[in-house]
Amino acid sequence: MDRIRKVAANISGIDPLIIKKTQERLDNLTKPLGSLGRLEELARQICGITGKESPLLRNKVIFTLASDHGVTEEGVSAYPKEVTSQMVYNFLSGGAGINVLANHVGARVVVVDIGVSSDLKPSPQLVIKKINYGTKNMAKGPAMTRDEAVKAICAGIEIFEDEFKAGIDIAGTGDMGIGNTTAASAITACFTNRPVEEITGRGTGLNDTGLKNKIDIIKKSIALNKPDSSDPVDVLSKIGGFEIAGLVGIILAGASKKVPVVIDGFISGAAALTAFRIEPKVKDYMIAGHCSVEIGHKVILEHIGLKPLFDLDLRLGEGTGAALGIGLADAAIKILTEMATFKSAKVSASLSSRATEGSRGI
Amino acid sequence: MDRIRKVAANISGIDPLIIKKTQERLDNLTKPLGSLGRLEELARQICGITGKESPLLRNKVIFTLASDHGVTEEGVSAYPKEVTSQMVYNFLSGGAGINVLANHVGARVVVVDIGVSSDLKPSPQLVIKKINYGTKNMAKGPAMTRDEAVKAICAGIEIFEDEFKAGIDIAGTGDMGIGNTTAASAITACFTNRPVEEITGRGTGLNDTGLKNKIDIIKKSIALNKPDSSDPVDVLSKIGGFEIAGLVGIILAGASKKVPVVIDGFISGAAALTAFRIEPKVKDYMIAGHCSVEIGHKVILEHIGLKPLFDLDLRLGEGTGAALGIGLADAAIKILTEMATFKSAKVSASLSSRATEGSRGI
Repeated sequence: MDRIRKVAANISGIDPLIIKKTQERLDNLTKPLGSLGRLEELARQICGITGKESPLLRNKVIFTLASDHGVTEEGVSAYPKEVTSQMVYNFLSGGAGINVLANHVGARVVVVDIGVSSDLKPSPQLVIKKINYGTKNMAKGPAMTRDEAVKAICAGIEIFEDEFKAGIDIAGTGDMGIGNTTAASAITACFTNRPVEEITGRGTGLNDTGLKNKIDIIKKSIALNKPDSSDPVDVLSKIGGFEIAGLVGIILAGASKKVPVVIDGFISGAAALTAFRIEPKVKDYMIAGHCSVEIGHKVILEHIGLKPLFDLDLRLGEGTGAALGIGLADAAIKILTEMATFKSAKVSASLSSRATEGSRGI
Repeated sequence: MDRIRKVAANISGIDPLIIKKTQERLDNLTKPLGSLGRLEELARQICGITGKESPLLRNKVIFTLASDHGVTEEGVSAYPKEVTSQMVYNFLSGGAGINVLANHVGARVVVVDIGVSSDLKPSPQLVIKKINYGTKNMAKGPAMTRDEAVKAICAGIEIFEDEFKAGIDIAGTGDMGIGNTTAASAITACFTNRPVEEITGRGTGLNDTGLKNKIDIIKKSIALNKPDSSDPVDVLSKIGGFEIAGLVGIILAGASKKVPVVIDGFISGAAALTAFRIEPKVKDYMIAGHCSVEIGHKVILEHIGLKPLFDLDLRLGEGTGAALGIGLADAAIKILTEMATFKSAKVSASLSSRATEGSRGI
C-alpha cells in the first residue's frame, strides 16, 4: 500500500503556463483560430502533461494485461475461458487486432500475464507478473484477497517503471480476459451508484438470456461481497480482476512520470475510474481513446469527465481504441511542431474586426 | 456536359458479393463478431468499391483545390481574399495543416489552382487549371457562366484522371478559398430547402454581426439568381465556386474509377451533395471523413445519408478531415488483411448458444 500511496502522491497538477504558451503557438499557425478543434486540445494537454513545449512522441507503448476471471463459471461470457491464454499467444505472434493497430500507429505492445489461469510458455516478449491463476468466482466470495489487489496494482506500477527505462513518451492501456466486462460492470456500478442494468452490456456477444444472467450475477456478487466504494482497493479485491488492478497501477505510474495515458474502452475505463478514486489529479493525464459499445463505458467517461476521441462502435478491448487515440495524439503534436506560422509563411492574419475567438478550454 | 454525363454513367452500384465475402472473412478473424464496428464497415465498403477482396491502399491522394470568390467584396469572411493565394504557396512549401496531416497518413497532396484571382508562380507541384480569376460577386449576379461551371467540373475529372495514371487507391477532397463557406451554405440551402440561418456558420471566425451579414448576403444571392435546384450545374454556376465545381468532378471521376473518395468538411460536403444530385449512385463511393463545426455540414451528411468517422470540432478544410479519414481507412484494411483467423491462431470460437450476432449493414 505504501508504494501505491507514494506513486499517487507524486502526481501533480499539469502546468497552466505551458498550456497558455502552447495555445499562443497554435494561434500563430497558418489556420483560423481554434480551427483544429480537439487536435489543438490534445496538443495543449500533452504539452501540459509533459511540461515540454515541443514534446516528441517517439516511444509509444501499449500495455495489454491478461488475466482470467473465476466468475466465468457462471456463464457470463460468449467465449470459453481458454480464449484468454490463446489470445495471449496470438498477441505474441502478432495476429491480434491490437498488434495490427499498434503497428499502424507505430506503438509497441507490452503483453503481460498478470493472472492467466494456466502457465504460459515463456517468451522474450511476454512479461510474467502472475498474481494468481485467475480470480475466484465473485458470485461465491471475494475475487481476490486485499493483499492480491495491492500486489496487482504494484505489479502495474513495476511494469510501467521497467518499461519507462526503455522510454515511454505516450502510453496506452489494454486488456484481455474472458469475463472481464462482468468485473468492469460491477466496479462501475459500485463507484457510480448506477443500477446494474444501466451499466451492463453484452461483452463479446451475449444474447438476451445471457445478458439477463450476467446482470443477475453482478447483482448477486455485489450483494454478497459488499464492496466499500470509499475504499478502491476493497472494491478491486472483492469484484475486480487482476488485469484491471494492474491497469490502475499503470495509469497511476504513467501520471507520476508525466506521461500521457490513453485509456482504451470499458475495462480500461473501470481501471481509470478506480485510479481516479485513488487520486483525482490523475484525470488530467488521461486521454479517452474512444467510447465503447459497452453501455457502462459512457457512464464512466461522464463520471470522470473525459470526452472520447473516437466513437466507432468498437468493443474489442486489447488496447485497440487506445492505439487509435495514440495515432491522433501523434497527429496533434505534429500539427503543433510542423506547421508554418503566419509570419514564416507570409500569410495575412485575420481581419480582427470581423473575427471572434470563440471559447477554449484545455 | 457530355463528358460529365459519360463519367456519371460509368458509376455502377458496388458489389454485394464482395461485401458478403468480406464480412465472412472479418467474422473469422480473432475477435468477437462485429467488435471492430465501423472499422469493419469501412473495410466492407472499400472492398465493395474496389471489387477487390484484399485491396491495397498504397497510393493515397488528397486533392486540394483553391479558388477565389467575388462575394468576399461583401465582407463575408474574417480573412482577406489574398489569403487564398498565400495559402497555396504554404501548401506548396509544406507548411499547412493539410501537409502535416497528409504526411501523417502517408498521402500525397495535389494542389490545384482552379480559380485563384491572381497568377501564381509556376511550381512543379502546382496543377494549373484556372477557369477564371475568381468567381464574380454572387450578390450582384451569377458567380460564373454555365459554361464555366461545366469546365470546372470537367477540370476536376481531368485532374483525377491524370493523377489516376500515377496510381490512386484512395482519394480525399480538400479546398482553399476565402469566402467559400458562403458559397457552400448557398448551395446547401438550395438543395436541402433548409432556411439559410440553419446552414450558415462562422467560417474562419466571424463575430455575430459578421454572421448576420453573411446570412443576408446568401439570402440576397439566392433571391437574385434564382438557382434551379433540379439542375445542379445551374446551382453551381449561379451561387457556387470553381473549387466546389472541381471537387464535384473529382468525386464523380473517383466513383467512375472505383476509387473510395473520403469527403472532407463543409465545402467538400457541398461538392458531394452536388455530385449526389447529378448521380445518386456516387454515395456508395463516399466516406465522410468528419463532421465539421460548420452547422450546414451535418445537414449535408444527413441529406446524403453519410455517417462521419470523426467528430473533432474541426473547421479548417484543406482536406484535413479527409486525411484523418484516409488514415482510418488504412487501419480498417490492415485489420482485414493482417489479423490472424481463429483457425490460424488456434483460438476457440464463440460458444454459439450464448452468442448473438447483432445487426450489420455496410
